[in-house]
Amino acid sequence: MGNKILKVVKIGGKLIENPVFLNSFLEDFVEMRGPKILVHGGGNKATAVAGKLGFETKMIDGRRITDKDSMEVITMVYGGLINKSIVAKLQSKKQNAIGLCGADGNVLISKRREVKEIDYGFVGDIEKVNSGFIESILNQNMIPVFSAISCTEDGVLLNTNGDSVASEIAIAMSKSFETQLYYCSEKKGVLTDMENDRSVISELNSTYYKELVETKVIKDGMLPKLHNCFEAINKGVATVFLGDSELLKKNAIHTKIVK
Amino acid sequence: MGNKILKVVKIGGKLIENPVFLNSFLEDFVEMRGPKILVHGGGNKATAVAGKLGFETKMIDGRRITDKDSMEVITMVYGGLINKSIVAKLQSKKQNAIGLCGADGNVLISKRREVKEIDYGFVGDIEKVNSGFIESILNQNMIPVFSAISCTEDGVLLNTNGDSVASEIAIAMSKSFETQLYYCSEKKGVLTDMENDRSVISELNSTYYKELVETKVIKDGMLPKLHNCFEAINKGVATVFLGDSELLKKNAIHTKIVK
Repeated sequence: MGNKILKVVKIGGKLIENPVFLNSFLEDFVEMRGPKILVHGGGNKATAVAGKLGFETKMIDGRRITDKDSMEVITMVYGGLINKSIVAKLQSKKQNAIGLCGADGNVLISKRREVKEIDYGFVGDIEKVNSGFIESILNQNMIPVFSAISCTEDGVLLNTNGDSVASEIAIAMSKSFETQLYYCSEKKGVLTDMENDRSVISELNSTYYKELVETKVIKDGMLPKLHNCFEAINKGVATVFLGDSELLKKNAIHTKIVK
Repeated sequence: MGNKILKVVKIGGKLIENPVFLNSFLEDFVEMRGPKILVHGGGNKATAVAGKLGFETKMIDGRRITDKDSMEVITMVYGGLINKSIVAKLQSKKQNAIGLCGADGNVLISKRREVKEIDYGFVGDIEKVNSGFIESILNQNMIPVFSAISCTEDGVLLNTNGDSVASEIAIAMSKSFETQLYYCSEKKGVLTDMENDRSVISELNSTYYKELVETKVIKDGMLPKLHNCFEAINKGVATVFLGDSELLKKNAIHTKIVK
């Protein structure tokens, strides 16, 4: 692990949908010094576009099935519209950025998820991050902006969980940087009481985390999210921060995750 | 002008729409040795998607008006779907490629077209090509794949003529390379008789060109196309080749344009 700090920021769906939030978030992002990477999801825009195009969004057990048509829409909306709009916005703020999906520079190589009981379709899990290519972009003082699309070695584009894209990139970059991972979503951090936004845990280590899982304070959707965070920490990422759209602001309330 | 040859290939709309043509074309493209760049249009896919989304394609005097909704669709379809699909296909053929629009790395900086009688909307003309960035990609043995979208300095994405994108890139790269420009469209080259596909002019220089314009052998849509070609030649591009989807094959019938 090097001494240079690299910040990997993931911005979630709902924040992207609101142009006011997005612009304010990007202004905070611009203020961050040093090398940085942005990873974005797509929110409901893909579902909305798919609906208008007459494609039904198929769900099994609350999880989206990405068939061929859906994957085309995701490539259009995440890889095209949202990605290029964010890059253009950053350029207007004098930040040199480059928009990437996993196929570009072979940067996120994935494997299609195995079909067990459910065939999720064009969904992939990352197997390799081309960290040398990312580093060459950072060395040119550019900001890589990733849409959550990876690519198989056979050139098949796959829908990929945005949180995982961010953590896999952060893990891979930890060879050369002290990496900080920022997850910006709707919650101010990990809450001890989901009904109370003021119950944010300010620091969480793995011992405390296990305790909170056992006592069922942490459950449901937070489980995979935090599993992801601790996997990142255990695989070399220095710190993970969880917060809302204000996370990048100084003195923002958040949860800091450490080993 | 250097000695190293760089090939800039533009592939037009209709060839992209047909997956069989596209695949065969990409196979020929893969066979080309040395540094190369691909520029693609979008064909009718954008119009089709726009129609399905309920956006009307507005035309004035046969020219498309790119309003805000159309520009979103173009960003989705050209910048996302088509661009990333081509990059993924090249990766599957073991060619390392990277998909770009003008905003990426500030690579194609344009100005919105001035409103005179007609407001064409979000349409731009390229003012600057960031050739240093393109060279850094070529130096990493990667193929830049451009969608025909440029970006203003204020971060506004603009629809841009694909032929002009290709020629502006070729001109800018002529500082460091001996540049060859390939335009692949539906015709086998410049024809002396539009009704006869066998009447391809094999070589065209500016003297012969002027003669053919005066005698009205060259007219209509071929005029701006050839104007573009000779501008490229006059600004440093070594050779321009015009042909159809077979243009990259050895011994293909084509028109070669020289000074």
